Amino acid sequence: MVKSKSLPKKEDFSEWYNEILSVAEITDVRYPIKGLCVWHPFGFALRDKVYAILKSLLDADHQEALFPLLIPENEFMKEAEHIRGFENEVYWVTKGGSTPLEVQLALRPTSETAIYPMFKLWIRSHVDLPLRIYQIVNTFRYETKHTRPLIRLREITSFKEAHTAHTTWDDAENQVREAMRVYSEFYSRLAVPHVITKRPQWDKFPGADYTMAVDTLMPDGKTLQIGTIHHLGTNFAKTFDIQYEDVNGEQQYVHQTCYGISERCIAAVIAVHGDDGGLVLPPEVAPTQVVIIPILFGSGREILHACKHVREMLSGAGFRVVLDDSDERPGAKYFKWEMKGVPLRIEIGPRDLKEKMVTLVQRDTFGKESIPQSELVEAIGQKLEEIHANLYEQARISFNARIVDCKEMGEAKVAVKKGIAKVNWCGEEECGMKMEDAADADMLGELAQTKKGKCPICNKETNKVVLMARAY
Amino acid sequence: MVKSKSLPKKEDFSEWYNEILSVAEITDVRYPIKGLCVWHPFGFALRDKVYAILKSLLDADHQEALFPLLIPENEFMKEAEHIRGFENEVYWVTKGGSTPLEVQLALRPTSETAIYPMFKLWIRSHVDLPLRIYQIVNTFRYETKHTRPLIRLREITSFKEAHTAHTTWDDAENQVREAMRVYSEFYSRLAVPHVITKRPQWDKFPGADYTMAVDTLMPDGKTLQIGTIHHLGTNFAKTFDIQYEDVNGEQQYVHQTCYGISERCIAAVIAVHGDDGGLVLPPEVAPTQVVIIPILFGSGREILHACKHVREMLSGAGFRVVLDDSDERPGAKYFKWEMKGVPLRIEIGPRDLKEKMVTLVQRDTFGKESIPQSELVEAIGQKLEEIHANLYEQARISFNARIVDCKEMGEAKVAVKKGIAKVNWCGEEECGMKMEDAADADMLGELAQTKKGKCPICNKETNKVVLMARAY
Repeated sequence: MVKSKSLPKKEDFSEWYNEILSVAEITDVRYPIKGLCVWHPFGFALRDKVYAILKSLLDADHQEALFPLLIPENEFMKEAEHIRGFENEVYWVTKGGSTPLEVQLALRPTSETAIYPMFKLWIRSHVDLPLRIYQIVNTFRYETKHTRPLIRLREITSFKEAHTAHTTWDDAENQVREAMRVYSEFYSRLAVPHVITKRPQWDKFPGADYTMAVDTLMPDGKTLQIGTIHHLGTNFAKTFDIQYEDVNGEQQYVHQTCYGISERCIAAVIAVHGDDGGLVLPPEVAPTQVVIIPILFGSGREILHACKHVREMLSGAGFRVVLDDSDERPGAKYFKWEMKGVPLRIEIGPRDLKEKMVTLVQRDTFGKESIPQSELVEAIGQKLEEIHANLYEQARISFNARIVDCKEMGEAKVAVKKGIAKVNWCGEEECGMKMEDAADADMLGELAQTKKGKCPICNKETNKVVLMARAY
Repeated sequence: MVKSKSLPKKEDFSEWYNEILSVAEITDVRYPIKGLCVWHPFGFALRDKVYAILKSLLDADHQEALFPLLIPENEFMKEAEHIRGFENEVYWVTKGGSTPLEVQLALRPTSETAIYPMFKLWIRSHVDLPLRIYQIVNTFRYETKHTRPLIRLREITSFKEAHTAHTTWDDAENQVREAMRVYSEFYSRLAVPHVITKRPQWDKFPGADYTMAVDTLMPDGKTLQIGTIHHLGTNFAKTFDIQYEDVNGEQQYVHQTCYGISERCIAAVIAVHGDDGGLVLPPEVAPTQVVIIPILFGSGREILHACKHVREMLSGAGFRVVLDDSDERPGAKYFKWEMKGVPLRIEIGPRDLKEKMVTLVQRDTFGKESIPQSELVEAIGQKLEEIHANLYEQARISFNARIVDCKEMGEAKVAVKKGIAKVNWCGEEECGMKMEDAADADMLGELAQTKKGKCPICNKETNKVVLMARAY
């Protein structure tokens, strides 16, 4: 199923990205509906590893559940601001068999209006709070913009959405901070540099009090939003009548948050780390961590025997190992496994065999060294950690180099061509809009960290700092 | 969130079943669309354990992938027999936002017509075969019959469907046998007795050459189909033009199979093993395997300390353990954890503490014994195995007792009131139909094992044996 095609250069990011998904067998876009993708088994295995990290982080104090895909129109329409935010993007089921349905059913674009009618039934008293639920599901958006695999889809296949309820607004705010911590840890496990900002009010989630967002930078200088966290206040609680009895026996509305991550997290891993040779995967999520390639000249049986021995040794130690004993030439095998981003390659040839050594090659640096077989298990463990650290370090250097402090919008307009502009802002929407126009870019949002300066539009003194970028 | 409500008796199976799902927090049927259910976190955890077994069995030689939910009408309509089988059950998406779609989109009722256009692209040569893919997804059926949680749903949330392609009809038939073996092993891991038969032609999967089905028996004497396996021959290959180049360079159609299991596997676990006190879960899939309950009179701190010690010891040994140190009385805790089917309960009271013993109570038999703390880890491991063996043995005795050899349809009509009638059949559809009428039951299908006798309708000698039952 692998095409023996080479990749465009990564500097032609858009072409490189579309091609790598196909050549490395992540997703197949040839499904006969625009904006819907098939996950190849290899891509699915990567997805599985990535989401296993996300699940393990959430499982510490969330519970996984599962809610229906279909939302009746009347529930969906209840929260006015929310529905306005999604009304052009909703797929509607209108028929069952040949019978028109009495109530149209929305395919969830996100599940607030599916989940909160149940929260109303589940939450009775303050002892039921906090309630922290998540699910990983397919959701749908009828995108009218250009679709792009893993990034802008009509079927989001891998939407992790968490929904929490609390007694007070401040408790919900603490949950927002906790979600920020969890998402940061998640992306550090993927070695993906990121920044978290507070979205401007005009760009918040429909129905939220405010929205925090996690962004990373793509190789073409555009930012990719890879997670959002919303403080919902009591907006949905009032709409769906979710109340609890407090310690004094009074009925109170719950305060809610929700936060989500889609398969964009996988797009980020691919785009941030990949190179001209294909994928470069962080060891923790690589479906195969080590590939063993026999270099056969003559003494084939002994070499194959040594390769099998090494495979048993490494898989016994818990590594994900493949021995490629197919008929292809070593060069073709290198090409294939480099394309798939396998962090380490072991080559065993006649000389290695004689010296009881193996040759170890790193995918990230192509560094090559000889290791005694007896020290291999320990060496592999160390190497995988080093690779993670190196990937993250390289990515951070590149990320930080593309965040530029700017005093005026002319500078910002230049900065956003390659990355992110960091600018002061007075906080007025009018100035914000003018800044977006002047930079020909979006205001990502406000940093928690402040810095004295002047709003580049109205010249007012301020310590608010915002990030601006061209966003996917 | 637990309601402190007791259960109807299991002999009133239908009421018992509906109530246990709610009281034990498996699913919540109060979602505002008929036939759609919410999985509670506890139910979801059970689902997770059950599907982990299914996945591990399939992962040996299948690859997991993921295909879109939506199928364009033109692809869906291609296989005439297939579409006729589903046309009254399909939910149609006809609008995106307020725009009517040019091509209506079906919510997959099953994914042949979503997957096979991709198989056409993926399969080129005999070296690509056999291809064995599976996915676990939500699928939709616009059921007009009475819906029932986990059993007959409009959203099947947990449909595992495997799809394979082979070079020859016989290879595909071998895959059918292999799938039967996998499904049998799966259900034996769930301690669910079952029988596999070949469905009569009038009841096969639309588009298949033939269909094998796995059935178990519900407490009310009706059978539940808990898995199906279809030999598709070249029917879909011809429709979707899936060809491979054989060793001689000739283009040939692939021979296909598909086989599926839905959340009915969980309904089976619940219905087969549960009792008047609630769930009884096989240890391998119990979200909690052991609950520790402190019996506190006076020397509370030491008892709690001992309970925590036991918890660490057991979770360190890999068991799923909960220490219930809540404020409820022990009796209320027993009730709650029995309802949730926890296989083993450990009680530690003053006397146990003094003697360095614990009291161990089995959920399946309510057998109680004293075990020295020092022998606990080993004892728990043994007990869990014994419980599995006991559950399976009890279930098999009950299952076998309800399969009755019948010579004529009068007997069969009586037998199907409590279970399954085993009858000879000449193989003619006409006789089969008359048998169904006479027994007021369905022909489940034909056993592989044969037995000489006479068709009860036409009196012809035959060695075919079929099972008949009233089916869910």
